[in-house]
Amino acid sequence: MSPYIAEFIGTALLVLLGNGAVANVLLARTKGKGADLIVIVIVMGWAMAVFIAVYVTASYSGAHLNPVVTISLALAGKFAWAKVPGYVAAQMLGGMAGALLVWLAYRQHFNKEGDADVKLGVFCTSPAIRSVPHNLLTEMIATFVLILGVLYLASPQVGLGALDALPVGLLVLGIGISLGGPTGYAMSPARDLSPRLMHALLPIPGKRDSDWRYSWIPVCGPLLGGAAATGLYLYLHAH
Amino acid sequence: MSPYIAEFIGTALLVLLGNGAVANVLLARTKGKGADLIVIVIVMGWAMAVFIAVYVTASYSGAHLNPVVTISLALAGKFAWAKVPGYVAAQMLGGMAGALLVWLAYRQHFNKEGDADVKLGVFCTSPAIRSVPHNLLTEMIATFVLILGVLYLASPQVGLGALDALPVGLLVLGIGISLGGPTGYAMSPARDLSPRLMHALLPIPGKRDSDWRYSWIPVCGPLLGGAAATGLYLYLHAH
Amino acid sequence: MSPYIAEFIGTALLVLLGNGAVANVLLARTKGKGADLIVIVIVMGWAMAVFIAVYVTASYSGAHLNPVVTISLALAGKFAWAKVPGYVAAQMLGGMAGALLVWLAYRQHFNKEGDADVKLGVFCTSPAIRSVPHNLLTEMIATFVLILGVLYLASPQVGLGALDALPVGLLVLGIGISLGGPTGYAMSPARDLSPRLMHALLPIPGKRDSDWRYSWIPVCGPLLGGAAATGLYLYLHAH
Amino acid sequence: MSPYIAEFIGTALLVLLGNGAVANVLLARTKGKGADLIVIVIVMGWAMAVFIAVYVTASYSGAHLNPVVTISLALAGKFAWAKVPGYVAAQMLGGMAGALLVWLAYRQHFNKEGDADVKLGVFCTSPAIRSVPHNLLTEMIATFVLILGVLYLASPQVGLGALDALPVGLLVLGIGISLGGPTGYAMSPARDLSPRLMHALLPIPGKRDSDWRYSWIPVCGPLLGGAAATGLYLYLHAH
Repeated sequence: MSPYIAEFIGTALLVLLGNGAVANVLLARTKGKGADLIVIVIVMGWAMAVFIAVYVTASYSGAHLNPVVTISLALAGKFAWAKVPGYVAAQMLGGMAGALLVWLAYRQHFNKEGDADVKLGVFCTSPAIRSVPHNLLTEMIATFVLILGVLYLASPQVGLGALDALPVGLLVLGIGISLGGPTGYAMSPARDLSPRLMHALLPIPGKRDSDWRYSWIPVCGPLLGGAAATGLYLYLHAH
Repeated sequence: MSPYIAEFIGTALLVLLGNGAVANVLLARTKGKGADLIVIVIVMGWAMAVFIAVYVTASYSGAHLNPVVTISLALAGKFAWAKVPGYVAAQMLGGMAGALLVWLAYRQHFNKEGDADVKLGVFCTSPAIRSVPHNLLTEMIATFVLILGVLYLASPQVGLGALDALPVGLLVLGIGISLGGPTGYAMSPARDLSPRLMHALLPIPGKRDSDWRYSWIPVCGPLLGGAAATGLYLYLHAH
Repeated sequence: MSPYIAEFIGTALLVLLGNGAVANVLLARTKGKGADLIVIVIVMGWAMAVFIAVYVTASYSGAHLNPVVTISLALAGKFAWAKVPGYVAAQMLGGMAGALLVWLAYRQHFNKEGDADVKLGVFCTSPAIRSVPHNLLTEMIATFVLILGVLYLASPQVGLGALDALPVGLLVLGIGISLGGPTGYAMSPARDLSPRLMHALLPIPGKRDSDWRYSWIPVCGPLLGGAAATGLYLYLHAH
Repeated sequence: MSPYIAEFIGTALLVLLGNGAVANVLLARTKGKGADLIVIVIVMGWAMAVFIAVYVTASYSGAHLNPVVTISLALAGKFAWAKVPGYVAAQMLGGMAGALLVWLAYRQHFNKEGDADVKLGVFCTSPAIRSVPHNLLTEMIATFVLILGVLYLASPQVGLGALDALPVGLLVLGIGISLGGPTGYAMSPARDLSPRLMHALLPIPGKRDSDWRYSWIPVCGPLLGGAAATGLYLYLHAH
């Protein structure tokens, strides 16, 4: 990558994430409107979750932990396609197991909770303003930033190392603060579709339907955003 | 550990801690309900406390600082059983000394405080909703995550090093945000039973009883969770 | 630099940033008055944005990402003047591209937003109390601290490395907390003038004028502050 | 230091800082009562200030930045007494220069501010509940933790290095969260007495007296706490 292109992309990222944070806390009807503390703790919680999960597993699997990461690394020629199905299956099952443990740890509080939307919201994302094209575009942009970052961090044929855990955690923190406002930054089927399935399967008292109508967007948006980031990455490496 | 198992466990951890944070701030009657700033500062305070204490002592003792860590490392064959009693005794006495210093530093404010539950809450944890099986299970799950992380970080026959201080501090931050909601994530007798003893011993004006009825749960839950994490760790290393 | 001068400058920085934080949250009519959560999330968002952008681009361009950084490094003899125009042009265009992506990601929320000042505020800074000399001075002091830090971090003929990403991100976090109160700490034409241009160009419904009257202050203040920091840096290295 | 003493001290530190955070946000009339956001931003601002100031100056002077650090390192035999007067003078003058820059950057907001106590509070600390023995004891305990940490980090004849900037910044963050409640954790004459002098000297409209009656406590408390930490450090190294 030439230094001029690097300065262009770096400054674009800087302003996208910086001004994105302003947009998230100021504009009407975003999830971050008014910088609700609930939103802040959730973005911090996900950032720590990413840090810990990457740190513990990096030396064993390269810590993809997201089918979009695995597929994008394969598209970029940094990961063998033969291992993709096993990785994706393990990630989707892992997402289901994690959601099960959340339900076990908070079971009493699920029972006391009266709002069925809140119960669903513990498992999966929903948009602030429902719109297929806009929601898809926002998930694409958020995942584009995630995968671009991961592609520059990842080692060939491996993935992430333990030293990448903090940068990737802070990357997810930055994306949450700056681009989480419209759709809740799912960016991964293992984080959205797998827990949504558990919401449908578990005997949660007073639960609503699992919003299957929206469920394809946090799968397809991230895949498209990851593919776009991979395309840019390959183009920049060839020039 | 095979890469597929690593992806499964990593993604389960990711979703457990991420969606756990959502559960903690959204569900009814958790300690994190509404993301109360008090809760945020307390989890940050404990994370910094762990970071500093590990950083200062790592090169002298391996910075276990928690009987459950010492016992789990011994169970995993990473620490000599002969040193366990001395470590545990030092940790329990250290927890009492720390609680004494808190009382000295905040003595005027203990005197002005009218709420006996608040005074007890400075020393030890209590559940959001009292229930022996659920409280025990939540302490088990939280400590399971802690000890699994520590076992992957710790060096044989030593324990933690200074470079582990930030990861372990962030691990405790993540657990606090995500799994602290139901019981306050004691995870250690030295953090719960020792200060509870000091609450009983110190001449605090207007104090209540030290809630001995609950006191065994933050001891047994963590020990069971630590044993489960050690079992999984040994199983994964053998396969 | 002699150790005595280092202790003088270090303690001055410490008190400037520490007491600056107190001033920002306590004094009348600052942007940080009362420690509004919106302000906290914005300063965290910019810090993460800086961290991520520096981390991704450091090995390709030295991650200047700000014309004031490029010009100050050239003034300090750490960067070739011949590359300055290309770097500055890439940064200004990058800032415009980032602002475009923010608009795309938050388009629905721009449409729902009724306050034209808020829409402008997503793109560029404005002073808490309008005054040419005071606003200029504050932007100078904030950028002085930024550039002094960057000059001590940057390697000759290169700029920042990936390991500088966290220190620079935390530097920008500290400046935002402590010196962002009066003018919003633009410190860069690529972060202020470029998005302001996009605000003027984009078809945002119900937008106001782009406040061109103020627009030169977040350009000239940072350049003057950067020049002052470079002068001090060169003086200290010669003595 | 024997591992058992290390576990005792580490666990005492852990519980002191962890339960101290709980005390600060829960007990009556502390500065952290209810976890006021103002307090959180101030502790974060000071932590960043320490990080940045240590990072920039470590390689030139060892980044003492506090007379109590310099004197404690000399007492511990880690720093030459001949350099102490120069270091302390530079630190005290640096603290005055920093306070001057805060006043310049926030001059408009000092003019608009009506509360004389707030204006003084930007410069120096004051106790939540005034009491000579208790305030002195709290400043001693807070500085004891600071200096104990610094003594274990500092290299002989030098002081702190750039890699110590983050640990020391987080140490100060932890102390602020956990032990800042009763007196505002001055811990340094350069952070309290120097800015207090500037408050007395600067032409701030509508200012009150500089509270000289309290001014000796944030000087003597830290010196005593530093001496106690040095004594413990020397004792532990000899056994």
